Amino acid sequence: MAMKAKPVQRWYSREVTATGHLVDSGIMSDVLDKIIGLGGKFEITSFEMGKTNVDQTNVNIVVKCQSRKQLLHIVEQLHDLGCSTVDDKPVTLKKAAKNRVAPEGFYSTTNHQTHIRLDRRWYKVTNQRMDAVIAIRGNRIECVKLRDISRGDKIVCGLDGIRITPEFRHRDRKDFGFMSAEVSSEKKVQLAVAEVASMLANKRKKVAVVAGPVVIHTGAGEALCKLIRKGYIDVLLSGNALPVHDIEEALYGTSLGIDTKTGKAVEGGHRHHIRAINQVYKYGSIKKMVKARALQSGIMYTCTKYGVPYVLAASLRDDGPLPETISDMIKAQEAYSRAIKNTDLVIMLSSMLHSIATGNMLPGNIKTICVDINPSVVTKLADRGSKQAIGVVTDVGLFLNLLASKL
Amino acid sequence: MAMKAKPVQRWYSREVTATGHLVDSGIMSDVLDKIIGLGGKFEITSFEMGKTNVDQTNVNIVVKCQSRKQLLHIVEQLHDLGCSTVDDKPVTLKKAAKNRVAPEGFYSTTNHQTHIRLDRRWYKVTNQRMDAVIAIRGNRIECVKLRDISRGDKIVCGLDGIRITPEFRHRDRKDFGFMSAEVSSEKKVQLAVAEVASMLANKRKKVAVVAGPVVIHTGAGEALCKLIRKGYIDVLLSGNALPVHDIEEALYGTSLGIDTKTGKAVEGGHRHHIRAINQVYKYGSIKKMVKARALQSGIMYTCTKYGVPYVLAASLRDDGPLPETISDMIKAQEAYSRAIKNTDLVIMLSSMLHSIATGNMLPGNIKTICVDINPSVVTKLADRGSKQAIGVVTDVGLFLNLLASKL
Amino acid sequence: MAMKAKPVQRWYSREVTATGHLVDSGIMSDVLDKIIGLGGKFEITSFEMGKTNVDQTNVNIVVKCQSRKQLLHIVEQLHDLGCSTVDDKPVTLKKAAKNRVAPEGFYSTTNHQTHIRLDRRWYKVTNQRMDAVIAIRGNRIECVKLRDISRGDKIVCGLDGIRITPEFRHRDRKDFGFMSAEVSSEKKVQLAVAEVASMLANKRKKVAVVAGPVVIHTGAGEALCKLIRKGYIDVLLSGNALPVHDIEEALYGTSLGIDTKTGKAVEGGHRHHIRAINQVYKYGSIKKMVKARALQSGIMYTCTKYGVPYVLAASLRDDGPLPETISDMIKAQEAYSRAIKNTDLVIMLSSMLHSIATGNMLPGNIKTICVDINPSVVTKLADRGSKQAIGVVTDVGLFLNLLASKL
Amino acid sequence: MAMKAKPVQRWYSREVTATGHLVDSGIMSDVLDKIIGLGGKFEITSFEMGKTNVDQTNVNIVVKCQSRKQLLHIVEQLHDLGCSTVDDKPVTLKKAAKNRVAPEGFYSTTNHQTHIRLDRRWYKVTNQRMDAVIAIRGNRIECVKLRDISRGDKIVCGLDGIRITPEFRHRDRKDFGFMSAEVSSEKKVQLAVAEVASMLANKRKKVAVVAGPVVIHTGAGEALCKLIRKGYIDVLLSGNALPVHDIEEALYGTSLGIDTKTGKAVEGGHRHHIRAINQVYKYGSIKKMVKARALQSGIMYTCTKYGVPYVLAASLRDDGPLPETISDMIKAQEAYSRAIKNTDLVIMLSSMLHSIATGNMLPGNIKTICVDINPSVVTKLADRGSKQAIGVVTDVGLFLNLLASKL
Repeated sequence: MAMKAKPVQRWYSREVTATGHLVDSGIMSDVLDKIIGLGGKFEITSFEMGKTNVDQTNVNIVVKCQSRKQLLHIVEQLHDLGCSTVDDKPVTLKKAAKNRVAPEGFYSTTNHQTHIRLDRRWYKVTNQRMDAVIAIRGNRIECVKLRDISRGDKIVCGLDGIRITPEFRHRDRKDFGFMSAEVSSEKKVQLAVAEVASMLANKRKKVAVVAGPVVIHTGAGEALCKLIRKGYIDVLLSGNALPVHDIEEALYGTSLGIDTKTGKAVEGGHRHHIRAINQVYKYGSIKKMVKARALQSGIMYTCTKYGVPYVLAASLRDDGPLPETISDMIKAQEAYSRAIKNTDLVIMLSSMLHSIATGNMLPGNIKTICVDINPSVVTKLADRGSKQAIGVVTDVGLFLNLLASKL
Repeated sequence: MAMKAKPVQRWYSREVTATGHLVDSGIMSDVLDKIIGLGGKFEITSFEMGKTNVDQTNVNIVVKCQSRKQLLHIVEQLHDLGCSTVDDKPVTLKKAAKNRVAPEGFYSTTNHQTHIRLDRRWYKVTNQRMDAVIAIRGNRIECVKLRDISRGDKIVCGLDGIRITPEFRHRDRKDFGFMSAEVSSEKKVQLAVAEVASMLANKRKKVAVVAGPVVIHTGAGEALCKLIRKGYIDVLLSGNALPVHDIEEALYGTSLGIDTKTGKAVEGGHRHHIRAINQVYKYGSIKKMVKARALQSGIMYTCTKYGVPYVLAASLRDDGPLPETISDMIKAQEAYSRAIKNTDLVIMLSSMLHSIATGNMLPGNIKTICVDINPSVVTKLADRGSKQAIGVVTDVGLFLNLLASKL
Repeated sequence: MAMKAKPVQRWYSREVTATGHLVDSGIMSDVLDKIIGLGGKFEITSFEMGKTNVDQTNVNIVVKCQSRKQLLHIVEQLHDLGCSTVDDKPVTLKKAAKNRVAPEGFYSTTNHQTHIRLDRRWYKVTNQRMDAVIAIRGNRIECVKLRDISRGDKIVCGLDGIRITPEFRHRDRKDFGFMSAEVSSEKKVQLAVAEVASMLANKRKKVAVVAGPVVIHTGAGEALCKLIRKGYIDVLLSGNALPVHDIEEALYGTSLGIDTKTGKAVEGGHRHHIRAINQVYKYGSIKKMVKARALQSGIMYTCTKYGVPYVLAASLRDDGPLPETISDMIKAQEAYSRAIKNTDLVIMLSSMLHSIATGNMLPGNIKTICVDINPSVVTKLADRGSKQAIGVVTDVGLFLNLLASKL
Repeated sequence: MAMKAKPVQRWYSREVTATGHLVDSGIMSDVLDKIIGLGGKFEITSFEMGKTNVDQTNVNIVVKCQSRKQLLHIVEQLHDLGCSTVDDKPVTLKKAAKNRVAPEGFYSTTNHQTHIRLDRRWYKVTNQRMDAVIAIRGNRIECVKLRDISRGDKIVCGLDGIRITPEFRHRDRKDFGFMSAEVSSEKKVQLAVAEVASMLANKRKKVAVVAGPVVIHTGAGEALCKLIRKGYIDVLLSGNALPVHDIEEALYGTSLGIDTKTGKAVEGGHRHHIRAINQVYKYGSIKKMVKARALQSGIMYTCTKYGVPYVLAASLRDDGPLPETISDMIKAQEAYSRAIKNTDLVIMLSSMLHSIATGNMLPGNIKTICVDINPSVVTKLADRGSKQAIGVVTDVGLFLNLLASKL
């Protein structure tokens, strides 16, 4: 080619900074990887490495890119990894022009702890969750879902003045001992049982269990009851199928029509679970049924007797649904969200839909254990953003029975 | 015990009758299997076998059992296989004493075509679906969900005077040619594509598609649009995620943040889909967005432009949800149920929740094809009662693209 | 069209007969289904139905078809279902012209018990297995693999004079109680454990275990040892990986490098298992290692100490292989085949390759239980012809530990 | 206990060094993570970070530990990540005392490029593969399997003087564009097809295909033939089942008895594949069959006609095996190993056993693509050490057909 002059390449650049266990947590490599993966270049302008593994590392990086748009993309990505821009700009705030609509350029949250800069100070954002906006309402700075935005809310926009603190994945995982990030069915589950038993025995704040009907089908209902009676569980999150089959078992001794003592089909399963629903309808609610002594065993009975709250959320495939099952999804999300406030351990038992839903609402630093015989459930949970979830791929019935016998 | 003589064994018995392609459809063997499996004995009192494969077979069987309760169970099971009791008793009707509560002993429906005997005549039940009751309201005889029972409705109870006509599974399956009951990934999917193409090309009544967001993620959005444009699809059933990611792709060229042209992550996926939701909130609805020319491509756009109705049902894990997503599950079930009226072909594409929900509402004789890369989805669908569903275990993206290229 | 005369349709027909629990076992419906599925018609010329469930049924069916070739196909299929042609023709025998080559039209066996008609009498075929030929050598009538045919062997050809007796699947399955044909992970595995425990406690002949290294990885090695010590297991079939990781655990306390006490990776796994192999090489064999007291625990040690024979078959992915691992597949197949002679129960534990291989060699009436966390293993086993296999989809580690605790 | 003074904690330490793209490749964080995960501490004594992403980083780290054994473990682990000890010690060599037995403390290889230090110089080890020893034989320094050790070979022991160069995973992966480490079925496979097509179109050295019989069952045989005819494939690695079903299809139009045109079972599949084997036995080999024009289509025919070598390795579940199938696993491993010499791209198509076996033999820098509908195959491949393998979770039949249409 006979080009006379190489056109001048314009480079856009921006400096970011991050502090923490950047190297040993893998964040440093994620940061550099991201820059290059997205077509940028980097120059490390300062690097103070923690000499030992209790020291923190501080790094400043200049990111360079040939397109302003691409640079913005990269900086946005780095932001999610805990890098903030070096200039101490305050957050940009715009007023919501109408209910439920965020202003253009609004900042969408991660599930990591977030601070925003206002009036030369950093403020912690409350109600942290992913896929929300940050709204300032009076003196509250909190995560708010799009649909909960009110006209006039001051909404954080752009990336300036926002700092997130990602969990130090690898390090945190160590609390779980043997349970690494890899999802595998070729592991000794007794060790996972022992660790979960130890977490429950030494529990600090609040334990939530998210459970699907497979708990009943696999014969682990009584094991879960035992955990409830002994005070290990503080709240139960589920859908409509778990209570239906739990009550079916309590009333008729079957689960989906399978006799839970013999494993044989005794009769049309659909008949039994529909009759169970009809019984609840007759009494008006599970609570009234328990009061009337018409329900005397099972998970729902035990929760009621021991004062463990439960939240039941409907889904499109439900029969019934039961009177206490919340049929409106917006209300159900709110009820779930309230129920998991202040939990520090969530155990998810064979319920993909409710587990992903709960994961969506959890801050990223809540310990989350997902027990399922299907490895893809754990994978999906992580894909949807709940990267802190530890998967135990095993038979949930055997798992819960073994767990109950250890406590 | 000091009993001197062996107590006389009391035998209870009841005669049932059935007519149809009992032998070649496998129903005859299911019937006898059920009797013995449940601890009964049988005596065949008459058997008129169809001499050729166009003739029907009629059989009368006396079922014997040592417990009245067990006998009832067996007869109930046989009933589900199409056996009615020989005595021409009319149905038993009881009035519902209050709303939402069926009388004791109410009959719970299957998804097979059902007739009831009243005034010495057989009447066909309308709105056939599983897990409902049969209610007589004025001159309507129809399937009604428990929650829709009104005080005073006459509800069918017991088993007398009820006759169901199960689909002849094996025979019906033959329409699907190569697609047998077995779920396997080791098959030549081109043949399945050819058969589905032929069904669509020769469609008789109404085709419903149930689709999940994987259609977008796997790059099959445009293929589905083509089917819609060409008039092969009459109604789209989905959740909230398919429209969100479809609009995300239309506005930003990504699906869950992955550039659908290059397959690379261009930016935080959560950002894009949340922004897409915000855009719909801004315009008020998908339809208004299309009208305002703010949405100009994708599945939702195409449905809107070509007048293909869609029903979107929320779930607990949704972001948003979009304004047109029905957040109340009872209303969503009703909308789905109305939408699939008169369909004779349902194609389910990578959406377990919505597929099972739709299966629950469908009469058992509607052709149902379930395409999913995960064989357990098809298994679950059948376990939940939709035994007519044919599974194609393959990559839904490649499947739809190939299908669109054949039509 | 102006065709003057419709061409005369030529129909070919052949009469077949079958006796047994044809209806309640599902065979009758399979037969008729097959005829129609393959484009034929049928006429039932006689039908003597067993009046009760202890009587047998006899049926004669004339199969009709418009092509001679298609008729042959159908008759061949029906043959596999236990139908023989009514004419009492003797078997057709042809001499093998050279080693390893069967004559044209040779009969390929199923895994069902087979009789052949010679000199007006029916003789039982010995060494029944699938995919073999029937050879007459002197007064022995036996299944012989293609590669074992010797020049001059009289080989059974065609279908005349061959009668097979399929297992009555559904009926037989009843012995397994709750374990039906369906493969599902949503079951109460404790019941399966109880049944297998009962089978072992009441064992009649010989129990073979086929096991993969997952038994070690999931912490069930000691449980299997206990079963061996207590005399429940008569022969162990495996590959190279189970003994390698078993010895790795015995010598170094790890399995694939994972500490089996803590579940943590202590060191490069490849290092440990390679060192374990080197130790066996040093002593010359597992047996010599045990004798030299260099191996004092684990499955291989226990087998050696308690005189339970084991057969180890190599595969392409092996390291080593160990001296006692048979590296030639033809010899390994023969060793497996000898080892499973006279077993009446085979338990397959997380080893797809060796389970399918064993299934290939087993007569169809041997009880076979396949425990695997992956449902597709059981499906594949059945697809490859071992339809008698009952699947238990669960965690093999928890399963074996629970089983050992029950015995 | 009556101990007066707390015992002085003894610390053991060792310094290691590494050079390369340590940070952006994730190796640096892996190194520090490993130290802490194994209970050690670290002090970074020098750190020269590459200023830009083309510069290399050099780091020196002192590892500290309270147990000499633990320290050794950590150093061994770090070694696998590319860290060598700073002292420039030469390798330790010990003579093998007898055939097949390595001296105590032998070094077991990884699949990463390795150098050893001898006479103050670094030498590259040839025939790199995992789970081997490094032997010096005359002037050859090479990886040798345990079983190939000869008495007198000088074997590398310990860790001194050994340096490995791990592939820079993340960076390398970039060549594959969209295909990241995550295994997911929710991706746009057309993009993977396009990239593989581009790799084949621009191929540099040698492409090996490892394929299982699913290629035939899913109707992709002709697509693979097209790739062979066009010269994209240099060697085919398989087992016995692929050629058997390929020849079955060529002779009888079926695959496992399923008509590949109609997808319907035409006849007992076992019959056809056994007959196919008998035909090959009759002619003596595939090559002779092709020469005699008795085999005129299919993959094996095409390989033979176009001079593409194939290596067939037996397994325990094989029928036959075919004359050209190598029944001895040691010989089969050697043949595979020779066949993949100098390949720079390996495509694995639905064959777990042969894929893992091939992965075991490959140096870690060979591009490896694994196409399977089952995500666990890819996971297993990586678990077994072939971390470079990129997984495409899709239908292999549709994948190959689409690939062939792009080339």
